Amino acid sequence: MAAKLFVENQTEMKMWVPIIINVIMSSAAFCLSIKLIPKVKDMFIQANLFGIDKSKKSNHKVPESLGVVTGCIFLITMFLFIPVSFGHGGRTEKFPHEFVELIAALLSICCMLLLGFADDVLDLRWRHKLLLPTIASLPLLMVYYVNFNTTTIVVPKPMRGIFGNILDIGILYYVYMGMLAVFCTNAINILAGVNGLEVGQSVVISISIMLFNLVELSGHAWKAHQFSLYFLMPYTATSLALLKYNWYPSRVFVGDTFCYFSGMTFAVVGILGHFSKTTLLFFIPQVFNFLFSVPQLFHFIECPRHRLPKFNAETDQLECSLVKFQYSKLSFLGKFFVNLFKFLRLIQWKEKDGYITSNNFTLINLVLLYSGPMHEAKLTTVLILIQIFCSGIAFLIRYPLASLFYDVE
Amino acid sequence: MAAKLFVENQTEMKMWVPIIINVIMSSAAFCLSIKLIPKVKDMFIQANLFGIDKSKKSNHKVPESLGVVTGCIFLITMFLFIPVSFGHGGRTEKFPHEFVELIAALLSICCMLLLGFADDVLDLRWRHKLLLPTIASLPLLMVYYVNFNTTTIVVPKPMRGIFGNILDIGILYYVYMGMLAVFCTNAINILAGVNGLEVGQSVVISISIMLFNLVELSGHAWKAHQFSLYFLMPYTATSLALLKYNWYPSRVFVGDTFCYFSGMTFAVVGILGHFSKTTLLFFIPQVFNFLFSVPQLFHFIECPRHRLPKFNAETDQLECSLVKFQYSKLSFLGKFFVNLFKFLRLIQWKEKDGYITSNNFTLINLVLLYSGPMHEAKLTTVLILIQIFCSGIAFLIRYPLASLFYDVE
Repeated sequence: MAAKLFVENQTEMKMWVPIIINVIMSSAAFCLSIKLIPKVKDMFIQANLFGIDKSKKSNHKVPESLGVVTGCIFLITMFLFIPVSFGHGGRTEKFPHEFVELIAALLSICCMLLLGFADDVLDLRWRHKLLLPTIASLPLLMVYYVNFNTTTIVVPKPMRGIFGNILDIGILYYVYMGMLAVFCTNAINILAGVNGLEVGQSVVISISIMLFNLVELSGHAWKAHQFSLYFLMPYTATSLALLKYNWYPSRVFVGDTFCYFSGMTFAVVGILGHFSKTTLLFFIPQVFNFLFSVPQLFHFIECPRHRLPKFNAETDQLECSLVKFQYSKLSFLGKFFVNLFKFLRLIQWKEKDGYITSNNFTLINLVLLYSGPMHEAKLTTVLILIQIFCSGIAFLIRYPLASLFYDVE
Repeated sequence: MAAKLFVENQTEMKMWVPIIINVIMSSAAFCLSIKLIPKVKDMFIQANLFGIDKSKKSNHKVPESLGVVTGCIFLITMFLFIPVSFGHGGRTEKFPHEFVELIAALLSICCMLLLGFADDVLDLRWRHKLLLPTIASLPLLMVYYVNFNTTTIVVPKPMRGIFGNILDIGILYYVYMGMLAVFCTNAINILAGVNGLEVGQSVVISISIMLFNLVELSGHAWKAHQFSLYFLMPYTATSLALLKYNWYPSRVFVGDTFCYFSGMTFAVVGILGHFSKTTLLFFIPQVFNFLFSVPQLFHFIECPRHRLPKFNAETDQLECSLVKFQYSKLSFLGKFFVNLFKFLRLIQWKEKDGYITSNNFTLINLVLLYSGPMHEAKLTTVLILIQIFCSGIAFLIRYPLASLFYDVE
């Protein structure tokens, strides 16, 4: 009995001590970010890294790509955390796999930060947005290949009649992991355009995954969830600091750097923690926004360079931005999507002289379509609330409903 | 007998097969670099990353920081090489240490590339030049701590009377490793200023270490030297491609990014291959240039913003650049160094009205002092030949003379 208690305490210790140290280190990272961002932001403007906020009356330069600062602070925190998580001197003999995974995950994130920053600086083309996350996910996939190379999945109950309980999907598993990284990075990148939204949504996703991890700490796979917390706590801390400066009215912009960095962090914990399907559940607004955007992104329908909501300087409010196209000139797919979205009441259109004017196909414009013009800060708040609401739905799907598809403990 | 031959063949196979694959991949990386650099260089100019070559008659913009391109190609090559070096599916059980080391080394190099590029873009201050390599070497030191934490050194023979054969220097070992990274990165960075020199010297150092590795492949520590070759072959290949464009007249500049990246690569293979002292032997010109520069770097003597040789547009040649200071106003240390260098005939001075005019304290100016004005391409060639000559000396010290200090097999 005493021995059992002792063993349990040992496990509890192993579980909580590194987490508590991580919390302390994350707090330090938060404070450092809060101090550092205002100090360095002028350097970014001098280096030609700035944007003009199109939804403001003033025209002054807002420093861009500050995500690289919080990204680097995140990395330093994680570097210093390595010995905490894995002790020292040969103790790794017992768990080399997890150790390699930790380092490989950091390598993927670091590489994504480098490529994201290069994208911000060099203004790469659209097709690179798919290539860069694929490159950055290579270390993770390669280490996965060397370490496990387990490519079996548990088949959902309704399909077990066809595929059996467990299915080896081989190379498709790697394609799936690579695509997850591409999706996570770009999905955050395209749900953007109002002050504070990129960071706000990322923080909601991060906190949601952390809640999920905390619940699962009591399960048998607690190590995977502890591992995920190691990454997400400093990530959340540094991102919250960034949010302080990025919230309306933005004193800094976060850049593609931040979106890439965030997406890769979520992909990494999802893949290595073996809960990538659950991770995707917390991306409901992003998945919706992506699917809704597809006809414009793939140019079935006219896609203006910016699809941001339109700023009305007189009322200081944001309005739905519009796109104009000729229905008769659309391809078959273009017509199909337009009619589908009209049927689903996702778009409203006005016809004149054979031209159709409709709202741009983004979640932000959809919200403005239904609510009417709104102040920017309020719009961001509404979108963040939608994200939180969707996280609630995600938990509902993950817990009570998952038993329909999988055997849940 | 047959069994022994078989085992030897097995070892030979394990030694050479990955090396040959690495050679093939490095060749591909070379070709890719050759193709990619001219394609992307205009993006760098558009992103405000360019310099004006002060030693040319024309004033056009030369793209800067192209080292980030070859650095990324190097990383991608290494990512793809991971499964080659370590096979797949559980085979790591036998050698997790080397595997973690490989990933950690890549993490340090990737982080250095990110910070170096950030330095180029944001133009960080002098003191950061010491901080950035320290940060980037953290993953390496942390993994070393978790993996081995062996901090003992073999004491040189003449000092064994005092310290014994083996000495545990504890935390000093980590300080040494961190300082090695700081030294390697900055030593290359300050021996610069003429077209092709940064890359040229780095390629000579890299090839020298590779020769040393090839010799040592027949020794008992062959794995460490194979490991070093894995890194240095793609490094040399991508750097040679860069050299093609950076050689006189430079069509691209390599940036601090390249110097940091190179220095960190050398530090990493030296540390993990346990031949850091030998690595330093290949840095003789850099060590000399650093020591010679110390009085100016630490401001014991006036240090102009640039200490490059002076371009004479009429003759199209480079001349010694000069510095002017008042001898009477020098500190004690300043006077000491000036007199020491004068005694060693490293500087020449002219006195006038209490002011002294002497050559700037760099290896490049020293060469020009003795040779007289020279064309830039010829100057770079001379400096590269000095580097090669010093590598010859290094081999002489390492092999015949090392037995005076250590027990050599």
